[in-house]
Amino acid sequence: MFIAETNIRVRYAETDQMDVVYYGNYAQYFEVGRVEAIRQLGYSYKDMENSGVMMPVVEMQCKYLRPAHYDDLLTIKTMLRELPEGHRIEFNQEVYNEQGKLLTAGKIVLYFLDMNTRTRTHMPAPLRAALAPFFTQAGS
Amino acid sequence: MFIAETNIRVRYAETDQMDVVYYGNYAQYFEVGRVEAIRQLGYSYKDMENSGVMMPVVEMQCKYLRPAHYDDLLTIKTMLRELPEGHRIEFNQEVYNEQGKLLTAGKIVLYFLDMNTRTRTHMPAPLRAALAPFFTQAGS
Amino acid sequence: MFIAETNIRVRYAETDQMDVVYYGNYAQYFEVGRVEAIRQLGYSYKDMENSGVMMPVVEMQCKYLRPAHYDDLLTIKTMLRELPEGHRIEFNQEVYNEQGKLLTAGKIVLYFLDMNTRTRTHMPAPLRAALAPFFTQAGS
Amino acid sequence: MFIAETNIRVRYAETDQMDVVYYGNYAQYFEVGRVEAIRQLGYSYKDMENSGVMMPVVEMQCKYLRPAHYDDLLTIKTMLRELPEGHRIEFNQEVYNEQGKLLTAGKIVLYFLDMNTRTRTHMPAPLRAALAPFFTQAGS
Repeated sequence: MFIAETNIRVRYAETDQMDVVYYGNYAQYFEVGRVEAIRQLGYSYKDMENSGVMMPVVEMQCKYLRPAHYDDLLTIKTMLRELPEGHRIEFNQEVYNEQGKLLTAGKIVLYFLDMNTRTRTHMPAPLRAALAPFFTQAGS
Repeated sequence: MFIAETNIRVRYAETDQMDVVYYGNYAQYFEVGRVEAIRQLGYSYKDMENSGVMMPVVEMQCKYLRPAHYDDLLTIKTMLRELPEGHRIEFNQEVYNEQGKLLTAGKIVLYFLDMNTRTRTHMPAPLRAALAPFFTQAGS
Repeated sequence: MFIAETNIRVRYAETDQMDVVYYGNYAQYFEVGRVEAIRQLGYSYKDMENSGVMMPVVEMQCKYLRPAHYDDLLTIKTMLRELPEGHRIEFNQEVYNEQGKLLTAGKIVLYFLDMNTRTRTHMPAPLRAALAPFFTQAGS
Repeated sequence: MFIAETNIRVRYAETDQMDVVYYGNYAQYFEVGRVEAIRQLGYSYKDMENSGVMMPVVEMQCKYLRPAHYDDLLTIKTMLRELPEGHRIEFNQEVYNEQGKLLTAGKIVLYFLDMNTRTRTHMPAPLRAALAPFFTQAGS
């Protein structure tokens, strides 16, 4: 299992008149979480696109448990429970506030697509090599 | 069952460098779909908030089947399959393009909350009265 | 002079915790205003990009006089005072609420750029042909 | 003169199909720049709102010189050239990329407003006290 954490400060623009973060903005927070998780592996999503592979989201599930507020310093926890074999990759992501309360929990499924043909491909080798050590032990 | 449809033109701001609508923006499209569905009933979400009831989203599930593109005139279909008895309401929502292709399908769960106490309440009477006729017939 | 109007309903996502439309969202409203102005001429910005010309914004000036609120049905007024000769086009745009109050006034300058070379070009011929009748009379 | 800098990583959501940051998103970047500038003074915009003062933007001018791209690590430079005496405060803000190139330059004017009465007020004393040392020398 691979776990990464990154922080995001809530922007004024991201609040709505309910005085909380608008529910649609968590998709951006999850995006930042995944991108920074990949960067912590020494690779980058930008590198991936430059190599001709993109990762559109094909499914998102999100539970909103508690609201986030303006100026909160959130922690986005990004978990990869299985090293994908094919074109499909599934992340579990969670958003916590500074008090350690779980605010939002999501599951996001993405595909690896060839940017030119827009057909399914698999995880680029450099990313797989960086991830493999997290999945080599028994039971992990 | 209550079904409503509304149209949304894709804005340039809503695209990303994959040349499609960013996955996080469908939450806004769904919001507009629900708001216009309520307006078609002769009520409005704004009226509801003015009466002291708000509807935060507590769960969203979304499948992204096909991309939407810049300037597409989308149809948002909003379906209420059950008239809620308590504080919970569940919508099924779908996004279609001009060729009638299903692009995105979502399930969104919201709660009725008292704005002052932030505790659970139920659907305001005027909205219930407007919705009831759609759920009175056998088999509907 | 060419003038076009279009309507936009304020989305919940566009409000912030000040209970008004976030100041950054007017750029989207202005974009929609320009796009619909071009469409009213029988052309479209999408057609323009498909023909290889894009229009990045190079300058924006915006005065915020009164706030817009959730669910307001705004009118975006888009004015072109001069038919551009070169690569530069300047729009004046205004946002009004349902009471006819002026909320926001902007000046937006864009360039016509060749999408392949990213160098300056001029207004595509079909758009110029559609606009010319508005600028032929004395004093217009 | 008071100058502060903060960094922002460009999100995928912030790009558009021109493969650059959408022009409307710089308002958010400027907002983050101002908020972090105030935080560097040991105060916070959130504190200010909690004390009953808010700062709506009343004017923005923005020149777009060069585009920002996905994943760029931008530097937002926020400059206050004059310590405001009344209800009006004016910031100059600039966005630079990692190569030190100036991408965008803006001037933003805000008012200090009493949140309850929505009438003009002045800069809260704690913020003024924190800023004053930057403006005490001759010629500053």
